[in-house]
Amino acid sequence: MAKSASRYVAFQGELGAFSHLAALKMLGERIKLLPCTSFRQVFEALRSGEAARAIVPIENTLHGSVLENYDHLLEYDFLIAGETSIRISHQLIAMPGVSFRHVTRAYSHPVALNQCKNFFQSHPDIKPEPYYDTAGSVKALMENQLKDAAAIASAIAADTYGGKILRRNIEDSRQNFTRFFLLTKQPLRPRSTSGAPKTSLVFGAPNTPGVLYRAMGCFALEELNLTKIESRPFRGKPWEYLFYVDFLGSIHERNVKRALANLRECTQFVKLLGSYRPTP
Amino acid sequence: MAKSASRYVAFQGELGAFSHLAALKMLGERIKLLPCTSFRQVFEALRSGEAARAIVPIENTLHGSVLENYDHLLEYDFLIAGETSIRISHQLIAMPGVSFRHVTRAYSHPVALNQCKNFFQSHPDIKPEPYYDTAGSVKALMENQLKDAAAIASAIAADTYGGKILRRNIEDSRQNFTRFFLLTKQPLRPRSTSGAPKTSLVFGAPNTPGVLYRAMGCFALEELNLTKIESRPFRGKPWEYLFYVDFLGSIHERNVKRALANLRECTQFVKLLGSYRPTP
Repeated sequence: MAKSASRYVAFQGELGAFSHLAALKMLGERIKLLPCTSFRQVFEALRSGEAARAIVPIENTLHGSVLENYDHLLEYDFLIAGETSIRISHQLIAMPGVSFRHVTRAYSHPVALNQCKNFFQSHPDIKPEPYYDTAGSVKALMENQLKDAAAIASAIAADTYGGKILRRNIEDSRQNFTRFFLLTKQPLRPRSTSGAPKTSLVFGAPNTPGVLYRAMGCFALEELNLTKIESRPFRGKPWEYLFYVDFLGSIHERNVKRALANLRECTQFVKLLGSYRPTP
Repeated sequence: MAKSASRYVAFQGELGAFSHLAALKMLGERIKLLPCTSFRQVFEALRSGEAARAIVPIENTLHGSVLENYDHLLEYDFLIAGETSIRISHQLIAMPGVSFRHVTRAYSHPVALNQCKNFFQSHPDIKPEPYYDTAGSVKALMENQLKDAAAIASAIAADTYGGKILRRNIEDSRQNFTRFFLLTKQPLRPRSTSGAPKTSLVFGAPNTPGVLYRAMGCFALEELNLTKIESRPFRGKPWEYLFYVDFLGSIHERNVKRALANLRECTQFVKLLGSYRPTP
């Protein structure tokens, strides 16, 4: 069990979810997948050793940060060992043999249905039907042998369940990307060496004038480029905040070490979440 | 209609919701309330003139920002005319005549049930029952004349529907506050003059090194104390961000005007959301 667990990668959703796609992109085809029903379950699978790695979405360019996962990153002591982003592209999928003119309704997660508004406007004969999961809607379509319905999900969901893609890329916006983190308990040998290294950390700032400016100054002084900042409430300290920061640079570089030393001086605590190379 | 509308205050939820409490605290008893089913509907009621003012929650000290309302603040052109915070305190409410030992289950919104875990642990005979709204659970309890059940909601929900409070303040954490904004179309004469004025704005930052540090510098240079910063994705510009900032100071002060002028120089756009005095 312990030996085979080393290959398991936990993710939230059904097989064929966009997290599944992110796992393949970052880790290749030879992984074993552990689908989980919630993000909490993904983190627990990594904690218990049931999985050796986990993939979680952290932000989307239309919807913003996945706040629950930011909170879990602080609560659990895992390392960010990689990141990648996936363009969210929706396919209209049906059972083999079903043609487009037979389709009277399309099942998917409400967020995905909402991202294909133009498609539904141009095809008023096809009714959007909310379902709990994108990939799960393909699975259900195939299991129930629905011959007058389709599902909206990723191309990999079509592959996974043997569905046929009737219309490709029916999403309204091409600017829809989700960024994923690869999490581990132990540092990994980096697989991707092409992207410039990034570092993520979280710090707690007291509610005193100018503290955030001084914290930002620790990075600016070392010419480190911040790529993201996210604030979350500091639990038990009303109106104080935690700040999650991503910047270009690796913890092995001397200017990053100096920036962190300075940051520790002017904040309540700093927790390093990992240095990693993006998979392009 | 137009005349009477001037007194209506739109808010999300049923009468007796925490937003209702915030409205009374900021505007007094002589208002007319317009309950809405969604935040979108609250903003639309203000836009259409159905209501002259609106109350929306903007952040909670346990859960963080209400991101949907941040997005609406950018989309609609309203002014923040006031703010207040309310301690979220949960009461166990039943029909008059029902005593504590009769209660076998307690209805409320899942978030509220989750905030009273200790109560349910000490009273295993009372089963938590999820319902769509806190105040709505009191309303339903009274309408259906349930004699073996209770609801968990605010004291004002008990008042509104004629329920009796069986147990007070059953929430786990006393550090649970929600902050509300009062929104208007036109500037209001400030009601509260006791709190120090605050200003809120949103700016868009290009994805270039040090831009956030320079933006923070515009405030630090004028000795303006930031009380909150929230980032949201910049729609249509993947991996660029909007920053919502609150700081102490009024737009009528000269150092605030200088800070805004400098901020406009180093960002893509600045939208002022309002200067207001908190109601303590």
